[in-house]
Amino acid sequence: MKKIIDRWSRLYAHRIELLKSSATRDLMGAASRPDMISFAGGLPSPETFDTELIKRILFELMENSGKEALQYGPTEGRYELREKICNLMSRIGLKAHPDNIIITSGAQQALDIIGKLFLEPGAAAILETPSYPGALNAFQIYEPHILTVPLKEDGMDIEQLRKILSRKSIPPRFIYTIPNFHNPAGVTLSLDKRKELAKLASENEILIIEDNAYGDLSFEGEQIPPLKSINEDVVYLGTLSKILSPGIRIGWVFASVALIQKINAAKQGADLCTSTLSQMLAEQFLDAIDLDAHLKKIREIYRIRRDTMIKALEEFFPEESSWTKPLGGFYLWVVINADINTTDMMPEALNEKVIYVPGEGFYLNNEGKNAMRLSFCNPTPEQIYEGIERLAEVVKEQIHLSRTIIGINKKPRRSERSSTE
Amino acid sequence: MKKIIDRWSRLYAHRIELLKSSATRDLMGAASRPDMISFAGGLPSPETFDTELIKRILFELMENSGKEALQYGPTEGRYELREKICNLMSRIGLKAHPDNIIITSGAQQALDIIGKLFLEPGAAAILETPSYPGALNAFQIYEPHILTVPLKEDGMDIEQLRKILSRKSIPPRFIYTIPNFHNPAGVTLSLDKRKELAKLASENEILIIEDNAYGDLSFEGEQIPPLKSINEDVVYLGTLSKILSPGIRIGWVFASVALIQKINAAKQGADLCTSTLSQMLAEQFLDAIDLDAHLKKIREIYRIRRDTMIKALEEFFPEESSWTKPLGGFYLWVVINADINTTDMMPEALNEKVIYVPGEGFYLNNEGKNAMRLSFCNPTPEQIYEGIERLAEVVKEQIHLSRTIIGINKKPRRSERSSTE
Repeated sequence: MKKIIDRWSRLYAHRIELLKSSATRDLMGAASRPDMISFAGGLPSPETFDTELIKRILFELMENSGKEALQYGPTEGRYELREKICNLMSRIGLKAHPDNIIITSGAQQALDIIGKLFLEPGAAAILETPSYPGALNAFQIYEPHILTVPLKEDGMDIEQLRKILSRKSIPPRFIYTIPNFHNPAGVTLSLDKRKELAKLASENEILIIEDNAYGDLSFEGEQIPPLKSINEDVVYLGTLSKILSPGIRIGWVFASVALIQKINAAKQGADLCTSTLSQMLAEQFLDAIDLDAHLKKIREIYRIRRDTMIKALEEFFPEESSWTKPLGGFYLWVVINADINTTDMMPEALNEKVIYVPGEGFYLNNEGKNAMRLSFCNPTPEQIYEGIERLAEVVKEQIHLSRTIIGINKKPRRSERSSTE
Repeated sequence: MKKIIDRWSRLYAHRIELLKSSATRDLMGAASRPDMISFAGGLPSPETFDTELIKRILFELMENSGKEALQYGPTEGRYELREKICNLMSRIGLKAHPDNIIITSGAQQALDIIGKLFLEPGAAAILETPSYPGALNAFQIYEPHILTVPLKEDGMDIEQLRKILSRKSIPPRFIYTIPNFHNPAGVTLSLDKRKELAKLASENEILIIEDNAYGDLSFEGEQIPPLKSINEDVVYLGTLSKILSPGIRIGWVFASVALIQKINAAKQGADLCTSTLSQMLAEQFLDAIDLDAHLKKIREIYRIRRDTMIKALEEFFPEESSWTKPLGGFYLWVVINADINTTDMMPEALNEKVIYVPGEGFYLNNEGKNAMRLSFCNPTPEQIYEGIERLAEVVKEQIHLSRTIIGINKKPRRSERSSTE
């Protein structure tokens, strides 16, 4: 977004300096240009939306319960939906009562409210790095100290976490993790590490926030039990964005009744309630759908796309590159072992009509400049193959330029150009 | 809600002490019991929901643009909807470009984000008193100093406001006002006072937040121009909750591009985007509806209810009572000139199967104990008549008890009983 003079800037709260616009969200405009192949956003494949079923449900809803669907609902969400969410979670070994559930306007709202309830100047939160920018945004605005634990192939580096916890210079309030098919890293936390993490949190009396946005989208192998099934104090976040629709904004929190009540009070101030129409649609959808068949279908769509992307990366990407091999979800993380900057490279990629998310937006310090997140969820396999070929050319050119003597053949970086333009 | 022990309370942010559950929201459970007549919530009359039209729109949406309606959308809201909101506002003399608009998840979300952007410890905001509890909740959590200006029959007491502004001990960031058919007071800010308020804000270089949630619901007389049409720096909040449906959660902010961009960045962290399905439904609704006829119909529904309530109050309520005579909207404010406490009176009213919102929830100090907000929007005229008769008996009994010698005939108040129960 272009810089606009703001006459009222002296009226803003200090925290406004921490307000960052997410690169992923800002790229949505570019992503929708014709011929653009986008590996940027985390938009589910429209093929996974069951529009026929949803059309029927909406028609019947308006026919039979229209007045109810258009009215305000309770802040905590409709009891019927919370019951069905309990049933849904029982499939992964979680036993919940509807009183332990609050419906949120997407899981993103849960992150915002958790930030509001737990974070303030002088408080700390522990995050994985790289981490989901939506969580960074939601948490940072409350001015906490953010401590980071690097990710490995099998998830969080537990030894690093142990070190951070033993320091305790600033008391951490929680550890935020995406254990399954990490956004952006594509890695999954192993069972052994889940047990260690759960134990560490108990010993140190801090909460775990388990964001399981992608848990339903496993492509192969056994599903690993959620942290919440190992440590009952875990605050569990779920969403219907990946299995029903992101456009209806339905997420939830599964936590203690005490915390649910606090989230409820905060949600009253945040948006009064989540769309009743969306909630009733979700209820009817969960009732009507053959969930096993539906999940099998959407997992297969995404599995083929992941396979296509990995095959194309192997075929086209230069030898300086490496990438994660996600067992599910939407994302794959690519690191280029060369002196390139994926943010500065973006204009060249846009020229070639392909976009991705530069790595540095997933970090709080200056890391990630030679990395990028590639989403395989939205483009078709054909587009994935074509897009990776295009992107590989851009990357190779950047590597080539980075090795050419500065000042003669090297193109100036955008940041260096800006002062003279 | 009952008190629950929270093992994790030491992890919460300091601001959690400011988190109040709204009496109105908490009464929603009681309001839905059979035979209960509720003057509590601000639920629009279901008669105003055009379910036939909405059924047709939803069917066609899923038929023609289902994949789009179920997908994520831009954080600022769909361009098409923002255009239609501009058209809608042009009816009341406001000229906006879609770039000046951001769609929010109800106007409540706008209040939360405004709190987040402007308020912090050491900052002040000026509110009317009594004021909308949803605004109090949204603002207080950010720990500002809240300064209050009493309401008169023609809106804010401008002389009091002038005094507060001349003090300037803590710099106020904004003045929050509901100029039309105030919630809860039912009063409307006169045109002269609007001009004075707009001028005062300019002179003191502070913002006005104009919450026009009820502006479309005028029952009689000329509509007074919005503050935003007098002072272009005003931040204007609108909603479709009162003319289309509150259950789909569509509100908006009309402000400078600079502020819209900041709200956009904050909304990314708050919920990514507002329901695309809701937005597309709103677009099609605004396209299809004969707005003049529709507004005429719903204003007439609410006008009859207001008239019924005032007639019933005149007939049944004791002489110690007085009330406002709203020219539109949902609410009427009753003050009982006697030593009664409307919070303590609530169990007696529940016994008589009638509820209201006790006055003190609309104040930050200890005022409003002898007042209550009565909503005439949701019950039918028959229920209003019957409910006011029931409530009058409860009030008369309380006045009687308040005048009986303490310790002999006076029923103990709930707060006095609680220690022995």
